[in-house]
Amino acid sequence: MTTLLIRDCRLPDGAAADILVRDGRIAAIGPGLDAPAGASVEAARGLLALPAFVEGHTHLDKTLWGMGWYRNEVGSRLIDRIDNERNERKRLGLDPRRQGEHMARMFLALGTTRIRTHADVDVAVGTAHSDALVALRDAMRGTMDMQVVAFPQSGLLIRPGTLELLDAALRNGADIVGGLDPSGIDRDPKGHLDAVFGLCTKHGKPLDIHLHEPGELGAFALDLIIERTLALGMQGKVVVSHAFCLGEVSRAPALYEALAEAGIALATTAPPSRPVPLVKAARASGTKIFAGNDGIRDTWGPYGKPDMLQRAMILGMKNDLRRDDEVALAFATVSDWAAEACGFETCRLAVGERADLVLLDAETLAEAVVAQPPRRVVISHGRIVARDGALVA
Amino acid sequence: MTTLLIRDCRLPDGAAADILVRDGRIAAIGPGLDAPAGASVEAARGLLALPAFVEGHTHLDKTLWGMGWYRNEVGSRLIDRIDNERNERKRLGLDPRRQGEHMARMFLALGTTRIRTHADVDVAVGTAHSDALVALRDAMRGTMDMQVVAFPQSGLLIRPGTLELLDAALRNGADIVGGLDPSGIDRDPKGHLDAVFGLCTKHGKPLDIHLHEPGELGAFALDLIIERTLALGMQGKVVVSHAFCLGEVSRAPALYEALAEAGIALATTAPPSRPVPLVKAARASGTKIFAGNDGIRDTWGPYGKPDMLQRAMILGMKNDLRRDDEVALAFATVSDWAAEACGFETCRLAVGERADLVLLDAETLAEAVVAQPPRRVVISHGRIVARDGALVA
Repeated sequence: MTTLLIRDCRLPDGAAADILVRDGRIAAIGPGLDAPAGASVEAARGLLALPAFVEGHTHLDKTLWGMGWYRNEVGSRLIDRIDNERNERKRLGLDPRRQGEHMARMFLALGTTRIRTHADVDVAVGTAHSDALVALRDAMRGTMDMQVVAFPQSGLLIRPGTLELLDAALRNGADIVGGLDPSGIDRDPKGHLDAVFGLCTKHGKPLDIHLHEPGELGAFALDLIIERTLALGMQGKVVVSHAFCLGEVSRAPALYEALAEAGIALATTAPPSRPVPLVKAARASGTKIFAGNDGIRDTWGPYGKPDMLQRAMILGMKNDLRRDDEVALAFATVSDWAAEACGFETCRLAVGERADLVLLDAETLAEAVVAQPPRRVVISHGRIVARDGALVA
Repeated sequence: MTTLLIRDCRLPDGAAADILVRDGRIAAIGPGLDAPAGASVEAARGLLALPAFVEGHTHLDKTLWGMGWYRNEVGSRLIDRIDNERNERKRLGLDPRRQGEHMARMFLALGTTRIRTHADVDVAVGTAHSDALVALRDAMRGTMDMQVVAFPQSGLLIRPGTLELLDAALRNGADIVGGLDPSGIDRDPKGHLDAVFGLCTKHGKPLDIHLHEPGELGAFALDLIIERTLALGMQGKVVVSHAFCLGEVSRAPALYEALAEAGIALATTAPPSRPVPLVKAARASGTKIFAGNDGIRDTWGPYGKPDMLQRAMILGMKNDLRRDDEVALAFATVSDWAAEACGFETCRLAVGERADLVLLDAETLAEAVVAQPPRRVVISHGRIVARDGALVA
């Protein structure tokens, strides 16, 4: 593999440094490194070097990016959006592999090298979305790390046959069991959670449950998830996504403590429009928290961009993180904290780490988050994969 | 003045059209317009045409943009931020005219042609910030419409001498009287409001009060502001900025009704981190509401960009505006609704309107809001003033 010397970049702490990359990993960091014989040299000319980014929660199979503008006329209830999407997929000619690959490549070009994506599994499309993203994951291995969650977006128990399809999706290579609003959608919290935890046990896979349920209904679901996680010894293997209830109930502090004890991590999109789990509250209890975009420009809504720095900005604004040391927390939710909680290889700017790096025009880490400047160079697995926002051959 | 034909753009409703600009105004809109003799022709090649944008609430005098990164280590209380700023201005060498001009030009390059800016007035800087922005306003007349609010950022009654300075700033040409947290900062709601409304009466000027006060304390301030607005016949002349309390108190619906009756408009930055007045609730009552960035990259915080489309996106996310017809409301808060509420000349894409236009790469208005694509051409007062995000000579 190539040896690459990044000459004259700056580190997040402000220090000028060179970075030596060898065999896909960071071999040395420091000022004035010698270029080994045969090394490529990349003149960074003072660009800021950051570890590459991690997308912790998205839906690669469903983005409409590049398919022409989708005129959204959807009702405002969760079930309206779920039903509309299931009905529109066919009419729109949505190809999950094509769309997923398009979006994954844009993520890469903007500096993301690890993605956890959900894939719809239901009685209409069967395992096709999950299978398509599993194939994409395998095709991009060595450039992009991807985890595929087999996700029952239209409900599990309320749509008979879905459980068997999830089982099949996992047999076909999906990495993670997905769950969804045990009461709000599936109308049977015990039944839903027993089913998804059962799949985890059967396949030896982790769990990622999307929990939109508000207030005490959502908190009750968290109670049940915590009980099962502890009973099954699944600490470190469970993510609850959204968990809006933690922004709403007065017993949130005790819930954070219980989540920490059960080793359950939280994924948040930090939506401006509603209460959410907060980064400082979660971390103070020891609960891991990380960020994702959720769907990007799909039938659910028009917002989002395959740029984790934009998501970090929104999370920073949502959490009112203004000091430089606070903005660094926002960055952690789209980099190393996300890698750790999802079980990806760590993602740090340190000797011995995999060389997944971004070089960009910013004076500080905080400026990178708030301004999202162009990505001059993206390096994945030690190779330069993109320049100025576009993939290189 | 120049006659300009914009050939082959698209209107927000999707129709292909030409736009004829003559003597600074829109003279005709329609397909296949003839270029008058001597007219310049701008080939828009399918670009989307939008009315130019309006910044309804910012602080041009205090941005640190371009001065090197400001490492924010400030405490989290409002008073910490106010005190820190007053203490840091001198150390940083903040020049309000230089910074204001720099930021106003960036606003223009990104499509904004009307700005309401606040200017600090206090016993440390006197009227210098306000005077500097008044001079900037006059220098940019004919290209940028600007309103200057003489704003007692450090308090009014608690800092004796400030009232006289506000009076002087208004004599020196400031357009609008500013007020600030009558209880939370000034500790005397009756005294503060009598003072600022008194200045309005004396100078025949409108009012813009920054009201951060939470819950019923803020609602009480609204009650007092409504009473005085009605008693003084100042309907249509009063803006309350922020008004977080409207996102918090149960009697918000009655307050919206009372604000509408008093002709009081609301300015919001739609901060993701806290409850705010909501666009649909305000409009349903007949209360005008519009948007602004507040401070952009200053000692208060690192966020913001002189791009009203980014602010519209954040407001859209905050208000959970997903349908295309809803995203159009977000756009209205940074265009015509803001112009109307601030008392600027109207800002619409229609014959007879002033020709302040933006041409950009987007398929729809909603895409422009969510993606904030490059501004290919900005036209102010009928002249092309910027291309590709940079001002032309």
